Amino acid sequence: MRPETVPPALRSAIPFSQSEREAVYKAIATRRDVRDQFLPEPLPDDLVMRLLRAAHAAPSVGFMQPWNFILVRDPALRQRAWEAFGKANEEAVALFPQERRDLYRSLKLEGIRKAPLSICVTCDPDRAGPVVLGRTHNPRMDVYSTVCAVQNLWLAARAEGVGLGWVSIFRDADVRAILGIPERIEIVAWLCLGFVDQLYAEPELAAKGWRQRLELEDLIFEDGWPQPG
Amino acid sequence: MRPETVPPALRSAIPFSQSEREAVYKAIATRRDVRDQFLPEPLPDDLVMRLLRAAHAAPSVGFMQPWNFILVRDPALRQRAWEAFGKANEEAVALFPQERRDLYRSLKLEGIRKAPLSICVTCDPDRAGPVVLGRTHNPRMDVYSTVCAVQNLWLAARAEGVGLGWVSIFRDADVRAILGIPERIEIVAWLCLGFVDQLYAEPELAAKGWRQRLELEDLIFEDGWPQPG
Repeated sequence: MRPETVPPALRSAIPFSQSEREAVYKAIATRRDVRDQFLPEPLPDDLVMRLLRAAHAAPSVGFMQPWNFILVRDPALRQRAWEAFGKANEEAVALFPQERRDLYRSLKLEGIRKAPLSICVTCDPDRAGPVVLGRTHNPRMDVYSTVCAVQNLWLAARAEGVGLGWVSIFRDADVRAILGIPERIEIVAWLCLGFVDQLYAEPELAAKGWRQRLELEDLIFEDGWPQPG
Repeated sequence: MRPETVPPALRSAIPFSQSEREAVYKAIATRRDVRDQFLPEPLPDDLVMRLLRAAHAAPSVGFMQPWNFILVRDPALRQRAWEAFGKANEEAVALFPQERRDLYRSLKLEGIRKAPLSICVTCDPDRAGPVVLGRTHNPRMDVYSTVCAVQNLWLAARAEGVGLGWVSIFRDADVRAILGIPERIEIVAWLCLGFVDQLYAEPELAAKGWRQRLELEDLIFEDGWPQPG
């Protein structure tokens, strides 16, 4: 490759080594949604910053970087969030068919009080003005960017020996009130984080008989959605 | 740790080595949204399956695994998608203030014809029945799971020396018609993939002066959203 043909901002993309590739796949394959295995030790500040830098390196539509990260360590706030979860979870139980309710109730679905750190991840739709490159035809792209940041954070946490659980059983208004989040800001995720020394070998909902892994091959189509007949 | 205290589905979570952690952070930090650096060689089937397995290992609400992956290699279909992009992109240009339009037009925002493989990633909201654990209070959790799958795929691609670009400037109805996707299925992402031997050292939109990286420190709050006064 002749250097003069490469614009200055482009760099040669050196391939990952086999061991580097394996490390990336290990993080992806062994990441778990953790609800109960959290250890009580606080996470060091420099570790938390590495996780947040990983999140901040996520792709974002129009490079708008719409995310904010609210670190919640205050036990009183986490107690209120846990109560909001409990209220919503009681509503949730009643939505399931009778024969699923006992199993549902037996599942621990959050670690809000046990994990030493919660992070509420939000999306500011106004971060880059009203018209955003790439959001013009899909208004949800800003939230999708924010979810990519969550997944980056999750994989970095795995590599750091930190478990992470995404709690989604809340009424939006409750989280908004607890953290004082303005109406124009979208609440995307409540994450619980803490060191772990044990993880499930397979997703916890599979281990506990709620739902099993689908065959990947059944989810792949070629050159279009399968048409009937 | 006494083995008898560990339920059978739990395993000791062995920490990542320093070099494994660095590999994960390298994938996160050097991942780019690729629009033009694609090489023409087709991606081997076993590589594509590794990428899809990474996507399939994503977290999903209630373990519903709502995603499908439509592999689009047919040049005629990719030509139609490129035309749909072009039509939408003309609409997009007109939405920007006059002084931004020349720069906008100068940006290449897709690699649909140049990249040998496109993958359309969709979300089936009915994959696990009408009531889904964890989706009861946030109906968008299924799509968020699908976005996590995209980000897994993106990071795995980086580790494999494969560039990936997410094209979002489409009218939903156009992609739906081109691939025959039923109305009840949500279209989440159109991804372009191909080997790359060059990548931008920073996000392309920053390199080309569209928008710069924000300071992470400004995006972090403690124990609540900052209140006025």
